[in-house]
Amino acid sequence: MKKVNLAVVGATGMVGRTFVKVLEERNLPIENIYFFSSSRSAGSTIVFNNKEYTVEELTETSFDRGIDIALFSAGASTSEKFAPIAASKGCVAVDNSSCWRMDEKVPLVVPEVNPQDISWNQGIIANPNCSTIQAVVALKPLHDKYKIKRIVYSTYQAVSGAGLSGYNDLENGLKGEAPKKFPHPIAGNCLPHIDVFLPNGYTKEEMKMVHETRKILGDNSLKITATTVRVPVFNGHSESINVEFEKQYDLDELKEVLRNAPGIIVQDDVANNVYPMAIDATGKDETFVGRIRRDESVESGVNLWVVADNIRKGAATNAVQIAQELIKMWNK
Amino acid sequence: MKKVNLAVVGATGMVGRTFVKVLEERNLPIENIYFFSSSRSAGSTIVFNNKEYTVEELTETSFDRGIDIALFSAGASTSEKFAPIAASKGCVAVDNSSCWRMDEKVPLVVPEVNPQDISWNQGIIANPNCSTIQAVVALKPLHDKYKIKRIVYSTYQAVSGAGLSGYNDLENGLKGEAPKKFPHPIAGNCLPHIDVFLPNGYTKEEMKMVHETRKILGDNSLKITATTVRVPVFNGHSESINVEFEKQYDLDELKEVLRNAPGIIVQDDVANNVYPMAIDATGKDETFVGRIRRDESVESGVNLWVVADNIRKGAATNAVQIAQELIKMWNK
Repeated sequence: MKKVNLAVVGATGMVGRTFVKVLEERNLPIENIYFFSSSRSAGSTIVFNNKEYTVEELTETSFDRGIDIALFSAGASTSEKFAPIAASKGCVAVDNSSCWRMDEKVPLVVPEVNPQDISWNQGIIANPNCSTIQAVVALKPLHDKYKIKRIVYSTYQAVSGAGLSGYNDLENGLKGEAPKKFPHPIAGNCLPHIDVFLPNGYTKEEMKMVHETRKILGDNSLKITATTVRVPVFNGHSESINVEFEKQYDLDELKEVLRNAPGIIVQDDVANNVYPMAIDATGKDETFVGRIRRDESVESGVNLWVVADNIRKGAATNAVQIAQELIKMWNK
Repeated sequence: MKKVNLAVVGATGMVGRTFVKVLEERNLPIENIYFFSSSRSAGSTIVFNNKEYTVEELTETSFDRGIDIALFSAGASTSEKFAPIAASKGCVAVDNSSCWRMDEKVPLVVPEVNPQDISWNQGIIANPNCSTIQAVVALKPLHDKYKIKRIVYSTYQAVSGAGLSGYNDLENGLKGEAPKKFPHPIAGNCLPHIDVFLPNGYTKEEMKMVHETRKILGDNSLKITATTVRVPVFNGHSESINVEFEKQYDLDELKEVLRNAPGIIVQDDVANNVYPMAIDATGKDETFVGRIRRDESVESGVNLWVVADNIRKGAATNAVQIAQELIKMWNK
């Protein structure tokens, strides 16, 4: 098997550190690994597979050494500038920012859902938004079988999705301190406000869920609306997903479809208080689906409760899975 | 104005204490007031309008003294037994439990929505479930104007809705202690589980929202589905409400309809990060509505974010408002 040279861009952030952990766990065939960051964090060290590495400052020449895959999680402006530079040097940038997701030349990939889209990449592959990833993992097998007509998303998103400063806002807020990252206290509160507001009254996060779901499922006819909410949970996004299908379904069969789908663990035994929870999903790579029940308010509808670790499946794990798919493709 | 004799049943619980506070604030024309509880709490004292009262044990003869109105918040089994006894003595029981809500002979009342239903009471008036009250306050003016076809509820409910023991579970859970009231930790977690599970896979709380919304709005044709979720918030329920109308609407007009409706404060200035929040609604009697935006996934739909103090408007305030309406009616 061909070994690859791999880089992590934004190695010292919350997602960056999880990249390192997931890369170790999944034992990728890595020849050389490089860690990049802004000048501010350059010089710090990272331990990968028991070896210490110095984090280098990201520059325009960083990719001039035969890097095959670069996992980016350093914000949209870094990705906007450096992902094309990486691509121009023959590297594939797997980008966790929102910068390239809706670019028609850039595949937006969840490996359980649309791995085939990796093949047409032109040097950049976008990692979807955390809240979208776990949703489409759950929805894809149902869309294939029953054809989704409409989706109503309401999310319960953890503060880790806002990075370390979001995490600190909750931790310090519980001690009575004022928030620094969020515009209002998150401790003991719910904020219907993730990312910036757009002219249509929706947040960017809400519109990401609308547009990215359509692109990943490859169906622009899907009717979708979303309300995205930050809740005082440290890690693990939960989602209330209401789905309307074109075709009729049998509930037991639908549950079986979910059970047999890749990346999903069905947790749905309400008699024993078993349902997906953020504290259980944390540290895991799967998407957890439960509270599966018929919505009697439409002809063919279902309600789902979908939970995943937003830093792992919602960011780092998904990007590493894309890297694994790339390597598999190159080794064919 | 005729003064009334008033009783509070379940005076020492979380809602009971708030009854006392709201009764003081609203300055009802009270001749005599009595406080009742189970034998366990009997003998404790309650201060009302600077006067100390001893809590009496509730018995079958408690209402044999010309009590006009009794506010019940002592659980469904107490209400089941004692509300008919109170009614048989000429008292009107305003009951905060779920016991009588769906009884066809019992009006289910939110004074801003269906005050006219008070007139046909036969001695028991039911106070709706907290999550339903705030929803119908927001939905009633829109139903009148645009005729609601379908509602999708997803709730973000505070632990105070589960009483003092729910409150303690969050407080102690934040210090790392195991929960006593909830089946799983609520600190740093979301539980898609409020009240018991029913054979159809929904919780009782979810079906309350479906049935009570229909009864209060007086429209059994309404299509409704709900997902109710406990979040780690001490007080104040938030709700993501997706509504589909039969008629078309103009968004500015719809906002104006909400602004002019009773009991509603519109907080919807996203450019300045203004939207309803649990920490702001706490201690207030109004229902707060914001994030008002067109749902483009249906022909005529809107998304709302609705927040209220579940102990005040969701329980105590609503019951006291019903008492006020009764007194108004008797004085006509």
